[in-house]
Amino acid sequence: MTRVGVILSGCGYLDGTEIHESVIALLSLDREGAQVQCLAPDKPQLDVVDHRTGEAIAGETRNVLVEAARIARGEIEDVANANAADFDAVIVPGGYGAAKNLSSFAVEGPDSTVDPGVEKLLRAVHEARKPIGFICIAPNLAARLFPGVDLTIGSDPETAGALETMGAHHKACPVESFVCDEKAKVVSCPAYMLGPGIKDVAAGIEKLVGEVLRLASSP
Amino acid sequence: MTRVGVILSGCGYLDGTEIHESVIALLSLDREGAQVQCLAPDKPQLDVVDHRTGEAIAGETRNVLVEAARIARGEIEDVANANAADFDAVIVPGGYGAAKNLSSFAVEGPDSTVDPGVEKLLRAVHEARKPIGFICIAPNLAARLFPGVDLTIGSDPETAGALETMGAHHKACPVESFVCDEKAKVVSCPAYMLGPGIKDVAAGIEKLVGEVLRLASSP
Repeated sequence: MTRVGVILSGCGYLDGTEIHESVIALLSLDREGAQVQCLAPDKPQLDVVDHRTGEAIAGETRNVLVEAARIARGEIEDVANANAADFDAVIVPGGYGAAKNLSSFAVEGPDSTVDPGVEKLLRAVHEARKPIGFICIAPNLAARLFPGVDLTIGSDPETAGALETMGAHHKACPVESFVCDEKAKVVSCPAYMLGPGIKDVAAGIEKLVGEVLRLASSP
Repeated sequence: MTRVGVILSGCGYLDGTEIHESVIALLSLDREGAQVQCLAPDKPQLDVVDHRTGEAIAGETRNVLVEAARIARGEIEDVANANAADFDAVIVPGGYGAAKNLSSFAVEGPDSTVDPGVEKLLRAVHEARKPIGFICIAPNLAARLFPGVDLTIGSDPETAGALETMGAHHKACPVESFVCDEKAKVVSCPAYMLGPGIKDVAAGIEKLVGEVLRLASSP
């Protein structure tokens, strides 16, 4: 049974994990027979956004791990305590949380840094030659940690340019497909960076999950 | 194009909508070509629960509609303003929110009442002979509003007994299937009332969506 860590970043696309993307990934992993462990940083979110209005709520604080537990139905661990040896692969769904809470990309762009617990796990998994899947805006982490990696965030020129500045090679990619850097074992897909709808996003994520599991079982 | 209202009750299974169930329903509806409008009551949640510990958080309040907007990516309307003529069918995912925020079933059991906006819409849709799908614990609404209806919440004797006390006819049902009351055009499936996992829950919800859409297009 392939053991996959899924790194969440809250619960809701404006301040945390994109909910559709994460549930589609969890469903696809379960259907493929993988064993999943959800992970998240145990720290305050960068902000809390009212998803009806799109406005940040001044003075409100929420914890990334506690909110991510809503998606994980309570079955979630602090990513800072995760051990790369316990996983055959890792997948990181998108949502602004992947650029606000897993890294500072939403604020600092090409000068961003990655959350220490997330960085430690992703580096160790990568160094062990295990695959990592990045969805939507989550490839910002790959650009920072694995310079020269091939990846996609869809087609947005500004975001793609920021990833190129960080040393990544951006490949334009339609929503129903993915980009695979075979050498780095890094897989990415655009999801809601492109949209337009949940079934389109699901098509790409299901293929990404399949590719990550294929890489996890190949030498 | 079949127009389907999806009534959400927050965001997270312990105090709102079950996230997996709602996303699976939205994905299935999109794949079947339905046009979806998410709806929720604009009022405070009954409570806010820490999904890591399972404990209610004293003193914290969240709004049902604002939290549900996380699942709906902001595309959501107040259910109190919904017009039955705008929908060919309605689906209500589960989670404790369907028994805490859409009704008082979690607290009052067989003596529970339904949120006025939800009651008005469901009664009008039902009287117009349009189908309604209820997932997980959401059939508590059908038991209250449509006495004598055939439904399922899976196999839990206590919950089934409460629905029977309200006048419903409970049918035991496996997670990958559904119960259809053809006369009432009410479809229900157990989902996380039974579990055990997301792929099992998805199997039942996808069939429920198919059955609701079939009923919506039959005279």
